[in-house]
Amino acid sequence: MDVERRIQIKVPCSSSNIGPGFDVLGLTLSMYLVLNVEIYKPQASNKDNHVTITYSGEGAEKISVSAEKNLITKSALYVLACHDIEGFPAPLRIHVDNSIPMGRGLGSSGAAVVAGVLLGDFIGNLNMTRDRILDFCLIIEKHPDNVTAALIGGFVAAYLRTLDPKDTDAPSIPHSETLDAKEVRKTNDHPPEVPEGIGHYIRLKWAKEIKAIAIIPQFEVATVTARSVLPEAYTRDDVVFNLQRLAVLTTALSVSPPNADLIFQAMQDRIHQPYRKHLIPGLPHILSSVKPQTHPGLLGICLSGAGPTILALAYDNFDHIAESITKAFAKEGIDTVVKVLEVTEDGAQVTKLSL
Amino acid sequence: MDVERRIQIKVPCSSSNIGPGFDVLGLTLSMYLVLNVEIYKPQASNKDNHVTITYSGEGAEKISVSAEKNLITKSALYVLACHDIEGFPAPLRIHVDNSIPMGRGLGSSGAAVVAGVLLGDFIGNLNMTRDRILDFCLIIEKHPDNVTAALIGGFVAAYLRTLDPKDTDAPSIPHSETLDAKEVRKTNDHPPEVPEGIGHYIRLKWAKEIKAIAIIPQFEVATVTARSVLPEAYTRDDVVFNLQRLAVLTTALSVSPPNADLIFQAMQDRIHQPYRKHLIPGLPHILSSVKPQTHPGLLGICLSGAGPTILALAYDNFDHIAESITKAFAKEGIDTVVKVLEVTEDGAQVTKLSL
Repeated sequence: MDVERRIQIKVPCSSSNIGPGFDVLGLTLSMYLVLNVEIYKPQASNKDNHVTITYSGEGAEKISVSAEKNLITKSALYVLACHDIEGFPAPLRIHVDNSIPMGRGLGSSGAAVVAGVLLGDFIGNLNMTRDRILDFCLIIEKHPDNVTAALIGGFVAAYLRTLDPKDTDAPSIPHSETLDAKEVRKTNDHPPEVPEGIGHYIRLKWAKEIKAIAIIPQFEVATVTARSVLPEAYTRDDVVFNLQRLAVLTTALSVSPPNADLIFQAMQDRIHQPYRKHLIPGLPHILSSVKPQTHPGLLGICLSGAGPTILALAYDNFDHIAESITKAFAKEGIDTVVKVLEVTEDGAQVTKLSL
Repeated sequence: MDVERRIQIKVPCSSSNIGPGFDVLGLTLSMYLVLNVEIYKPQASNKDNHVTITYSGEGAEKISVSAEKNLITKSALYVLACHDIEGFPAPLRIHVDNSIPMGRGLGSSGAAVVAGVLLGDFIGNLNMTRDRILDFCLIIEKHPDNVTAALIGGFVAAYLRTLDPKDTDAPSIPHSETLDAKEVRKTNDHPPEVPEGIGHYIRLKWAKEIKAIAIIPQFEVATVTARSVLPEAYTRDDVVFNLQRLAVLTTALSVSPPNADLIFQAMQDRIHQPYRKHLIPGLPHILSSVKPQTHPGLLGICLSGAGPTILALAYDNFDHIAESITKAFAKEGIDTVVKVLEVTEDGAQVTKLSL
């Protein structure tokens, strides 16, 4: 078979929540899921349009390389099915090289969904706008903060219109119960309609000197577990506490040089971190002992997503900050990997490669 | 007696809350409390250093012109007492000309406190920095959003460090139980110490073309009543709803040209407005019928502070928007006054006038 086109799809990892910004803030970071895709000449029969997936990097030992199970190709097939295209229109070879640790709160599944939707868009010649691509990402992955960051890049605030059932203007979104493209076709006379403008988002400014030190413990926390420990109700004091800090934080992180005192206070949270602390041994000690006073250059510490990764925002002394946090984990017998990451303004990118 | 110095103190009104930004956002608006102050030569005895207050404009018929009862002079005397100065060091004539309607959610008492602290600073030759002046304003008026806006100007996010009892770094603030300067002196061997850096705030950017239409119903809502109707607890859905919109709103209001769809959605609130609706007849109808689709140029509608004033943010068609809201109130038998206000970047100002 002849290779007809080659593309690379590169999707950044992302952190979400970011202090008081529970379920809304997303931060795009310089660690990537990369797909190298070879597209062959279409065959006479769709049945022969098979997909070969190889996988290296994080998760290589456990990720399914079956096209109908792998989240990337499953998402692509779903997008195609929504456009009345059955299966991949041409044979593919996909090599996935993944640097994003899984189940650590760094948006690995969000990145896979974004990669899959971009793959479906390209393979199906759908030419969707970025906002339309976001609609598809959001119908597959309901949490908007990570996918919006991974797709759009930079520092974003994002939410789903559908979270507002009282808003009569909101489209009703038939969240895909099954991502299985075959099921989608079986249960629908017409391809499912994905409403437009599901996600509302805005890019926030980010002061360039601020980097994110990701301290990644070598164990996973399932998002569903991390969500199950959250209370159903909050006191007005706690609600106001977060609203006040969130309103300050989004702008404080855009100002150069950063105001460490202001940012450190504004990074405090009472909505999710206090309830998740016990899932991450060492975290209470880290939060009480690693401060700008002891670690100049530090701006704030938060859980990345639902954890267990700890994100330390800083503009200097990255190694010292990382070392203190790593040591606190080591005392609990937990190994960590440390990455000093940039906040990347570029979101996901599709590049055509030469043959 | 000879006039030795003349100053003018001009303090803007302010709106607070602003959609999802309950207890944190403050917006400085172009309607003013103006003090014209004549300072005479100090007399031999402090007892003769009397103050004459005259008053015109909003509240003229009910505001006390007794120096120890009027909130402006009371605040000034408190600041002086904190600096070990007993009473005004010189005789004063103060003419207050007030355009800020009282008890309507436009920060009239916050403006009076700011005016008083600035007066005390000037009269006592205290030369306090603006941040130090803010400390005194915050120790007198506990809600930071209005006083910070009135003092600093523009669009601000502000909170008190003291709202965080779990933060061991926070100073413990002996909130003034009594503003009575005589009591302050009686009950303290030393003047009360006002801690530094009580308020944390940041100025947010504001798109210049956005104006605030204030529709001011001719009745008052006491802040204490408006606060008593709020629940003590909120569901996680409602908390997340506000956090999401707040994170988008603060930046969305800085972008030119404004994105009406985004801002209108991001102005929605579930923390205070739903509970205060019944205090303001006509409001539910206004919120459901006045929208960007029917009123191009409209960006969002919210309660100003605890109400009853309605704030409509808009960049065009100010008269049409105001008329629709006025009519809705008229149907309920409520008269209104409408002001189309600018968001003023200047906060409170003290100007020395020629003699």
